This record gives sequence, C-alpha cells and structure tokens, in this order.
Amino acid sequence: MEDQSLKPIRCKAAVCRTPGEPLTIEEIVVDPPKAYEIRIKIICTSLCHTDVTVWRAKSVGEKVEGYAAGDTVVPNFMGECDSCESCLSEGTNQCTSVPFTMGPGMRRDGTTRFRDSQGAPIHDLVAVSSFSQYTVVDVNQVVKVHPSLPPKLACLLGCCGGTGVGAAWRLAKVQPGSSVAVFGLGSVGLAVVQGAKMCGASKIIGKEFGVTDFVNPSQLGDRPVSEVINEMTGGGADYSFECIGVSSVMTEAVRSTKPGRGKTIILGLEMDGQPLCLPSFEFLFGKCVMGSLFGGMKPKTDLPILAEKCMNKELELEKLVTHEVDLEEINTSFDLLLQGKSLRCIIWMDKLHFR
Amino acid sequence: MEDQSLKPIRCKAAVCRTPGEPLTIEEIVVDPPKAYEIRIKIICTSLCHTDVTVWRAKSVGEKVEGYAAGDTVVPNFMGECDSCESCLSEGTNQCTSVPFTMGPGMRRDGTTRFRDSQGAPIHDLVAVSSFSQYTVVDVNQVVKVHPSLPPKLACLLGCCGGTGVGAAWRLAKVQPGSSVAVFGLGSVGLAVVQGAKMCGASKIIGKEFGVTDFVNPSQLGDRPVSEVINEMTGGGADYSFECIGVSSVMTEAVRSTKPGRGKTIILGLEMDGQPLCLPSFEFLFGKCVMGSLFGGMKPKTDLPILAEKCMNKELELEKLVTHEVDLEEINTSFDLLLQGKSLRCIIWMDKLHFR
Ligand SMILES: [Zn+2]
Ligand SMILES: [Zn+2]
Ligand SMILES: [Zn+2]
Ligand SMILES: [Zn+2]
Repeated sequence: MEDQSLKPIRCKAAVCRTPGEPLTIEEIVVDPPKAYEIRIKIICTSLCHTDVTVWRAKSVGEKVEGYAAGDTVVPNFMGECDSCESCLSEGTNQCTSVPFTMGPGMRRDGTTRFRDSQGAPIHDLVAVSSFSQYTVVDVNQVVKVHPSLPPKLACLLGCCGGTGVGAAWRLAKVQPGSSVAVFGLGSVGLAVVQGAKMCGASKIIGKEFGVTDFVNPSQLGDRPVSEVINEMTGGGADYSFECIGVSSVMTEAVRSTKPGRGKTIILGLEMDGQPLCLPSFEFLFGKCVMGSLFGGMKPKTDLPILAEKCMNKELELEKLVTHEVDLEEINTSFDLLLQGKSLRCIIWMDKLHFR
Repeated sequence: MEDQSLKPIRCKAAVCRTPGEPLTIEEIVVDPPKAYEIRIKIICTSLCHTDVTVWRAKSVGEKVEGYAAGDTVVPNFMGECDSCESCLSEGTNQCTSVPFTMGPGMRRDGTTRFRDSQGAPIHDLVAVSSFSQYTVVDVNQVVKVHPSLPPKLACLLGCCGGTGVGAAWRLAKVQPGSSVAVFGLGSVGLAVVQGAKMCGASKIIGKEFGVTDFVNPSQLGDRPVSEVINEMTGGGADYSFECIGVSSVMTEAVRSTKPGRGKTIILGLEMDGQPLCLPSFEFLFGKCVMGSLFGGMKPKTDLPILAEKCMNKELELEKLVTHEVDLEEINTSFDLLLQGKSLRCIIWMDKLHFR
C-alpha cells in the first residue's frame, strides 16, 4: 500500500482571493508535512477572530514524536513545546522556542504547504489553514484529545471557548463561592460564565443564560454599572471580565471589583485603539488587572483537562453553538457573524462522515 | 502596687495645632485602653506618609487575648483579626471586621484616647498617635515581634520598608532567578530592591545601591526607558515596580515587562490625580498590573517572618535609615524629608533608654 504521508493531497478549501470579497471554494493542494509538522484532516471549524478547528491527524513529518495518523487533535494558535523555559514554568503560557506569530507560513521556516490547483503557492494566512479540508500544523500547536470528544466541542475549546473558560480557570483562578461580573456576553463572555460556574462561583452577574443575577442597562439611569454591581455584591465582585473591547467598559469592569482583592481580566481587544485608563487610586487599595492570550492556558496541558470536563458535562459549551453550515455555505457564516446574528457557527468540512 | 493599666499616663508628644505649622512638643494625657485596645510605649518612630512606630505594650484593655504588658510590638495601619472571611482567605489583606480607615479616632468607637494637659480631647490623627511617647491602638493592628529585633528595623517594617518588601514577596511573588525593574528609589523602592534580593531575583534594575544593573537616564536620549529595560532583560523584566506616583512612569513600568508573564506593581499614589493609561494591547499578550495596601501583607502573619529575616540579615533594611533624631528635633526630620535629603529618619522617643 502506498504511503499517503509522502504525497500531496488534493482537497477543497475556502480561499480568500481579494480581501473583503466572499471566499471562493477551490480545489487546492496540501503538501506533506515536513520535520516537526503534522498534516491534519479537518472535521469542523468555527468562524472566529482566530479560526480554529478540529481534526484528525493524517500524516506526521520527521522528528514528530507522540502523534500518529488517526489521533484526534485540536490545532491551537498557541504552541507548547514542553521543553523551553516558559513551557516548564508556571508564570506564562507563551512558548519561547516556537513563538506565536501572526504572520503567514509555517512557524519554523516561514514557507507554506498550500498550493492552488495550478501549483502556485497559497499563503498560509490564518483563515486559509482551517477553511481547508486538510492543513499542516507545527507539532507544538497540536493537542491530542480523547477521540470520543464531540468535534463541535473540541472546536470551541480551541479558541473562544477555551479562551473564556481558561480566563476564569487559569488566569483569574476563580474560587468556589466567589462573585463574578461579566461584561459582554458574546461567545468569549459566555464561555467565561461557563468557566466561572465550573470553578464554583456562586454569583455570576451578566445579562444572559447561565448567569445568576442580571443587570438591566435600561434601568441604570445615570448610574454607572459599577455602582450597581458594587451594591449587588456587597462592595464589589471578586472578579470581573471585559469581553467586549471598549476602553470605558474596561474602566467600569475594574471599578466593579472589590477593593483589596478584585481581579479584572481584559479579554476584549480595544478596537478603536483607546487606552485603558484607571485612577491609580483603584490600585492603591488592592486590585489587579490582567490579560493573556488563550486565557493563560498551556494548550497541551490544559485542553485535555477541559475536554474531559466537557464530556462529564461539568462544562457546557454546546450552548455557544447557534448555527451549523457546510463548507460551501461558509460565506453565510461570515454574514451571520458580521450581523451579530450568531454566537459560534460551526462549519463542517465533510458532512457525509461527521455531522 | 498600683495597677498602672487603669490610670491615664502623662507624657510628651509632638502635636500638630495648625496644619502646615511646625509641631509643638507638649505634655499630653493618654487614657487607658478600652476593650480590644492596647496601650503602647513608643520607642522610636519613622517619619513617613503613614508614620508608624515601634513599641512596647504597656497595658491591655478588656477582651484582649494573647498580648501582655512588656511584649515588643509593631502597630500597623492595616488590621488582621484572624477570624473574618478576608483574614481567613488567601486573596486579600484587608480585614473586613475592623476595616482600614483614614479618619481620626479608634476604629471601633471613633473616640480618642488623647487629651491635652487641660483635659481637652486631641483628635487622634495619624500623626499624633505615633509622635507621642504613649499611644493606644486596636488589638487587630498590633503585631508581636521578637524582643531582640532592633527597634529601628521594626520601625521600618511597619511601614515603607514592609510595604516595599511585601510588594516583592507577597504581591509580586518574585521568583528566584527573575529580573526586576524598580522605578523610583526612595525608601519604598529601596525596600522593593531588598525584598527582590531576599526572594532571589538575579537581575535588579535601578539606579542605586543594592541593584545589580543601572539605567542612566542621561544616556537614554529620546528612547523610552522601557525600550532600554527590554534590551537589558532580553524582552522585558519579569516584574516592575512603580514607587514614585507618576502616571507616565506607571505606563513605562508596564511597557518594561515581558509579554506573557510581566507583572507590574503600582506602589506610588498618583499625586496629580492623573489616571494610569495603558494600551489594552499590552494586556492582550499577557501582563498583569496590581497594587495593594501594605504590599499585600497580612501584618500579624507576615511581619514576624520578615522580622526574623532582618535578624538573619536576609533582609537589610538598615540601609534605609539616613538620619536619627530625638522627639524634640522632630521638625528637623520633616524638613529633611520635604527637602529630599533623607530616606528614613528615625525619631527616638526616649533617648535615655533605647538609642
Ligand atoms: Zn516552549
Ligand atoms: Zn475564537
Ligand atoms: Zn479580619
Ligand atoms: Zn512609610
């Protein structure tokens, strides 16, 4: 039998030919994995700011240990090498041996494994690599998960879902019985709510399902929301999460926490480039503001733990999924997201087998 | 023999009769301690924004357990009751049973134990209570230390010294081998340096004694100091401390830390009321900004540990003391501080016995 791992694979992908234009479904060629790389068959993916996916390892390159064709895996935008100073220490989740980059190309050599049907290289932008039926990823970015984890859930864990849950669990370290205020209940915020529940928070303030207490902005009048939250929590929430990306909301999130112990987690990226401004007095009495990529989680260490919690129903990420489409309908998925009509939309790459 | 604990004590104190005018040395009357209070003979004190002191317990009020006349004690502006939810938890050092107040008077009933020689009440402003040869303090604010701890050192531990050391030790949790940048090397900043050394930091960047690496502002030219620190530390310090209270320095302190793990501790109080402004992008890649009263330390739990480290020479706070005066010369001490000519100036309350 021929060794498929040595051959290019032809498959379908949604390719962005002109920024801002709809994606076109094309046949592309995915080259075999080189050293330290794994070629993956994508089962489903979710439309997101980082666009990640679930998957089955298809072939592995040289020097790849501990992975075999057939493993169920979640590729992640963060790497974890298990051997650099950062990966071995507690204080950070940013691998320094193969660092996070926004740029195109494979992390180690900058080249692409994608070609179009005429053989011209397709630059491996974040979008292309998961909107293809096959992709190639650095071994440091590939997390093995239990094969019985539903692909939909694994897909959410790899990105927003993981980020939100991780922010509550690993970054804030939400304690049992504590109070949590979540600003912005999109998919990251709702994942924070699920993560806070998983950690045993007893009061979760927000505006949507899963929360225990509600703030109705129309009833605030002229009062800042922080004042209302301070009242609801007897002096401030133990934790607040900003999941929108608006400077003034970040300030309110900090003001909503309890002096002496309040932690605010900034998950939203300020889109207008406005700085976060805080009276330094807020810090004086003991507060903490922090942020992190991927909720401070080390992907290979932490995602398998969360995968198990999903299977146990300790973590209910299903609720984040509002739509499901096939690869051919990917542009619908973009429209729903841009119109604010969806939370997570799952894109199935091969409906015959997995949906 | 008469029970001295029931009687008022006449003693000398430096009293502020008109704000902004020099203090006058007067004979005052210090009433006996009421329930949950301890009357203390002050040995020496240090001029500071919070003005604290060392001390010998002289008489104890009703309901005071675990303290006896003759104990060497450090009164502290933070309380610790050992029984409220905050004191029993890890996340905060702000006792909620007898909370920190800036106002005059005893914490439980708001009354004063000080009278002038004509019997008129003297309101127990922060300044009065430690510039007297005797004072009365709530039992929650009184920390017992080993009697052989030199009073001068105990005096520093109770305030700036403790705040700076605590900020490195308890708040930042400086790790062995890490890099630390200290902005502002007054007494708090120098105490941070000592605390970081005690925790095993291998690179401490600043401009004064105790630091391992130097930044000379005159050589910076147009470059921000954060850029230089990022170079010196290969991508950013693990921790930075702002000990001045200037908004723009706070921003530089945050920019000086390593993405993915940097922690910035805000110890300076912004005097111009300027907010701390940070690009939210700084948080995205994983940074943390925090502040706390008294360096995040629980006084009764942590000060005895630091007192032992002072006695072992693991912690060298002596270096913060640049001047020593007697109570009668207290106004000289204010002048030195205001002119920036002193770090800590120790004020001895009873030179015959203790100096
Ligand atoms: Zn690594
Ligand atoms: Zn996402
Ligand atoms: Zn307490
Ligand atoms: Zn001080």
